[in-house]
Amino acid sequence: MRTISLCTDFGTSDWFVGTMKGVILGINARASIVDITHGIPAGDIRAGAIALKMSYRFFPRRTVHVAVVDPGVGTDRAAIAVRTQNYFFVGPDNGVMSWALASEKVVGTWRLENPKYFLTKISNTFHGRDIFAPVAAHLSIGLPPQKLGPVAGEIVTIPWPGPKLLAGKVQGEIVYIDHFGNAITNIESPLIRNRENCVCEIARPRRIRCRLGSSYAAVPAGQPIAIIGSSGLLEVAVNGYSAARKFGLQVGNIVSVKL
Amino acid sequence: MRTISLCTDFGTSDWFVGTMKGVILGINARASIVDITHGIPAGDIRAGAIALKMSYRFFPRRTVHVAVVDPGVGTDRAAIAVRTQNYFFVGPDNGVMSWALASEKVVGTWRLENPKYFLTKISNTFHGRDIFAPVAAHLSIGLPPQKLGPVAGEIVTIPWPGPKLLAGKVQGEIVYIDHFGNAITNIESPLIRNRENCVCEIARPRRIRCRLGSSYAAVPAGQPIAIIGSSGLLEVAVNGYSAARKFGLQVGNIVSVKL
Amino acid sequence: MRTISLCTDFGTSDWFVGTMKGVILGINARASIVDITHGIPAGDIRAGAIALKMSYRFFPRRTVHVAVVDPGVGTDRAAIAVRTQNYFFVGPDNGVMSWALASEKVVGTWRLENPKYFLTKISNTFHGRDIFAPVAAHLSIGLPPQKLGPVAGEIVTIPWPGPKLLAGKVQGEIVYIDHFGNAITNIESPLIRNRENCVCEIARPRRIRCRLGSSYAAVPAGQPIAIIGSSGLLEVAVNGYSAARKFGLQVGNIVSVKL
Repeated sequence: MRTISLCTDFGTSDWFVGTMKGVILGINARASIVDITHGIPAGDIRAGAIALKMSYRFFPRRTVHVAVVDPGVGTDRAAIAVRTQNYFFVGPDNGVMSWALASEKVVGTWRLENPKYFLTKISNTFHGRDIFAPVAAHLSIGLPPQKLGPVAGEIVTIPWPGPKLLAGKVQGEIVYIDHFGNAITNIESPLIRNRENCVCEIARPRRIRCRLGSSYAAVPAGQPIAIIGSSGLLEVAVNGYSAARKFGLQVGNIVSVKL
Repeated sequence: MRTISLCTDFGTSDWFVGTMKGVILGINARASIVDITHGIPAGDIRAGAIALKMSYRFFPRRTVHVAVVDPGVGTDRAAIAVRTQNYFFVGPDNGVMSWALASEKVVGTWRLENPKYFLTKISNTFHGRDIFAPVAAHLSIGLPPQKLGPVAGEIVTIPWPGPKLLAGKVQGEIVYIDHFGNAITNIESPLIRNRENCVCEIARPRRIRCRLGSSYAAVPAGQPIAIIGSSGLLEVAVNGYSAARKFGLQVGNIVSVKL
Repeated sequence: MRTISLCTDFGTSDWFVGTMKGVILGINARASIVDITHGIPAGDIRAGAIALKMSYRFFPRRTVHVAVVDPGVGTDRAAIAVRTQNYFFVGPDNGVMSWALASEKVVGTWRLENPKYFLTKISNTFHGRDIFAPVAAHLSIGLPPQKLGPVAGEIVTIPWPGPKLLAGKVQGEIVYIDHFGNAITNIESPLIRNRENCVCEIARPRRIRCRLGSSYAAVPAGQPIAIIGSSGLLEVAVNGYSAARKFGLQVGNIVSVKL
């Protein structure tokens, strides 16, 4: 019983994800397939990279993580498999797995070029089904990754947008807005040394000033609060409501924390 | 092979649900994890309670049902596990499991206080991942619930909104609107004794009068019909359309049945 | 370990799909259940038929495919199981499985009339739970389909809308719009003999003229392109955007390819 996780921008309204699972089960009938999400906005490699970064390490060792946010499908962008000390990662070489890999000890990286482990007929538009699903299934039953193709040289990485340490404050940005409308920033909890007096500010699109609390419900319903979220990053929330909708927040908005 | 069901308001656009499943499989690699739904409106404990009430008894005996609609996460609300004659239920003690428990024979109730069965690091915002998923996984491999913490006293229950029996009619209300736009009421089928002549009425927001039928297609397309739904509750539907959208129906609207 | 696929219009916001899975696991605890999709528009039998046609053959042999797009539930429409050389199909007899069956060698077809393999109590509105899920589970553990009921006579089929071969061009239509806004047509790739010079045109609702390319990214972002999609059908896409939204495309719009 080996776990294969899937993280894509395929949505769930079509047959795409189900088809990938059918392909996997045809190769490894005992695979335990888990959806991380298929709700990554179409082509948004950074959102895919965040979803994978936040979730991958909660899976059992030896999980094969498949990440397919792939606007370059059908071009000459490479397809890769990466082995780390604990996991495999499979997907296009466009940076979607780079934020997860930044915390892992990489053991090896291979280009997916051996058609023996692909479906027989390869489309130009759906490598999730034709290449990534069968490769992941083969890895899950113990295929040595060396069989997949040649060692890859340097792979594509996206720089993680680190916060800036300025005089008396940390300046970061919103990196993700979740389903609840909470605005997750790139400010890591160790940067916030004085939690009792810290004030979090967003200047635009609308001014928000709030204190750091320990639960959404620590402020009255409808009030904003800063909180260390489940990934150890500062987030801005509104108790009982969507902070993003209430304040028009978007990825990229600047967030400051006065220390 | 033990089943664990998940019912949450986490949505499926982020990595939250997948992460919970990763945690579960790290403890019980053979768990069969089923999503009841993750589409409960954010923080809507009553909608979560209905989803669980309507579905839990269709699962195999000894299924561990995990219900996480948890606006009080991070506050001092308790986390509990309940054993009934047939199932386990795990979640916050806020009433979300109370409508399911009302039909079950409860054997015992425990507070989740033993960190041995949690993830090592507990966030303030995601007990689904840090507490409820690992506890459910441990129960699914046979952990005696007594190990989880002390016996809980009385747990939070939400009163089920019973219909009123008035002269010549039953007066109930809409308790849920489903994906098809069917308006499910709290009027149970045994209350409708004279099915042939019964007339169902909604006065507001728009007047609807319809008869009881035995299939959506028993009336012409676009026409309203009352029907005993799959949970044994009267529902108001429109053949081929969303009754909720067509008539502006909402949870709480009053529904009368003339007997 | 046998695979059961589910393709429905039930959505995922309610408890319907989870309940079907609970029923299946109660009969076959080792079933591997895969969602093809539950996002078929409510009652849209043709969309369900396409999703099944495009995906079913990627599943392991002996998969039981359950297709429930069933606006006639509760009427006297038949419920059927079909055995083909490679698969089982279970669902209402309304054509939803007919486009998949057109490519399969049918071995036998039975009407689901033996209540022994249903849930004890049958609702008028949710045969997915009460009939199709338990029948599929029984088939997945080896029940001979003959036990389910009498042999069915002719079953309902929907004609696949074939393209027309006119002087110097193929005229087809949009048959499906996917999550990315790509417009999938009924024009099969072998009909396009001269790929280098082929021009694809849509006259309405807005004029589009584009060439055939081999990847979405073969044209600049925002530009339309025709491409042979993953099912071997011509599709019209826009690099990085939704073609459907950009050009107001809908199922049924006429698409011509000059040869």
